[in-house]
Amino acid sequence: MNLQREVILTRYDKGQVSEVSDVVVCEYPFTIYINGEETVTLVCSPESLDYLTLGYLLSEGIINKKTDIESVDINEEKGAAYVRLSEDAGNSPYFKRGRRPTKGCSGGTIFYNIYDFVQSKISDKKIQIHYKKILSLMEEFTTKSDTFRDTGGVHGAALSDGEKILIFNEDIGRHNAMDKVIGEAFAKDMVFEDKIILTSGRISSEMLIKAAKRNVSVMVSRSAPMDLAIRIGEEINLTTVGFVRGERMNVYTGKDRILFGE
Amino acid sequence: MNLQREVILTRYDKGQVSEVSDVVVCEYPFTIYINGEETVTLVCSPESLDYLTLGYLLSEGIINKKTDIESVDINEEKGAAYVRLSEDAGNSPYFKRGRRPTKGCSGGTIFYNIYDFVQSKISDKKIQIHYKKILSLMEEFTTKSDTFRDTGGVHGAALSDGEKILIFNEDIGRHNAMDKVIGEAFAKDMVFEDKIILTSGRISSEMLIKAAKRNVSVMVSRSAPMDLAIRIGEEINLTTVGFVRGERMNVYTGKDRILFGE
Repeated sequence: MNLQREVILTRYDKGQVSEVSDVVVCEYPFTIYINGEETVTLVCSPESLDYLTLGYLLSEGIINKKTDIESVDINEEKGAAYVRLSEDAGNSPYFKRGRRPTKGCSGGTIFYNIYDFVQSKISDKKIQIHYKKILSLMEEFTTKSDTFRDTGGVHGAALSDGEKILIFNEDIGRHNAMDKVIGEAFAKDMVFEDKIILTSGRISSEMLIKAAKRNVSVMVSRSAPMDLAIRIGEEINLTTVGFVRGERMNVYTGKDRILFGE
Repeated sequence: MNLQREVILTRYDKGQVSEVSDVVVCEYPFTIYINGEETVTLVCSPESLDYLTLGYLLSEGIINKKTDIESVDINEEKGAAYVRLSEDAGNSPYFKRGRRPTKGCSGGTIFYNIYDFVQSKISDKKIQIHYKKILSLMEEFTTKSDTFRDTGGVHGAALSDGEKILIFNEDIGRHNAMDKVIGEAFAKDMVFEDKIILTSGRISSEMLIKAAKRNVSVMVSRSAPMDLAIRIGEEINLTTVGFVRGERMNVYTGKDRILFGE
């Protein structure tokens, strides 16, 4: 399978707007079934899926030795691994513990209902924003983050009305930073529909869906959007803008919301 | 609470070795209980925990409106949020679905047994590696990753015997990349004890624990290690080396394994 695919995007670079092609990284939802039970869906790159399955089982303490496994069948088309454990492994502490899996700083648990979700299109509400505003918002956004400058280890997320940044939060995980922004806006009874979200991290499908669930229609990042995020962005008409740095930006989807020219 | 803390580390910078202090980002395990049931443990930055809780509940579809919540109590000391939902919310599709949470590309579900784990110390096996080897391994590591150069969206992980890179994998998630490396080494019956792991991503506590569970005693990254990873690294005597770039590196823990001088 392909690890990346080509997309056509609208690039702004120091006064020049052009349609160019570029490559984005593929996101591949991959579900591991253990003894017939759906255990976890990883969003990953579609290669070495057998090693990923084994490594996941090891890291989670589900297996410890080869004889713990009876079989591993990978179905690339379905994006699934079917694992059968031997009886020994079935008695491992992992299964006795009865605790739910937890998730890490930058993980998201949102993926499972993506296909339910994609049916609902972003409203056509005419939020439009000039590219110069995006550049200046990203500048404001970047200067807000002190922790990042010191340690290089924190992501920021922000909500903006297109004029200024209204809410800003940081976290070691980009999903957490975004959930903090969503939570704060919610607590303050703010409306999401006419806002844009900025993030320092990659726009993954999970990040995009978090935004879309709140009816936010523009997402802006310093980093790359990912393949599945772009597909969903196209599908539901959510604007994604990536690599906003200095005098540059790439508009991947929903470009009608971004105004170029003076 | 503090978002970052100061650590003393050994810095190599163009021929000079010195003890310096620097700041690292805090990692804070934060467990959300819903109606008395442990639901998820996020590893996050310890601020805006109320917003994080609300945002998480919204993003997961557990709540949709304020009246879905009866109360949210944050206990900072315990690292916990106790959420009581109103009866309406208890009937939401989330609870009816009966599906387990999934996790994202860069998430880890490994955290819950961290405290069980920390009791087991890394063996004192005398793996030692010269700093020049680390610099050259990182150079080899960096050139291996084509996808990253094209798209800026992929993490790499590798296993090395201190001389060369034996296994290399990439993924959109740094946890997945590392699990692929672990899985491949396992499939090939390789011994972990005398190896080092390289990663392009941050060394979080979860990444460190993945390594420690396999008895790997040296972890090397282009990026920052995080607070809790450093604490655990000290505790179990696992060597962490961060910001390995060009002619620089920082040794945070287990510095006896890194040989300086000619």
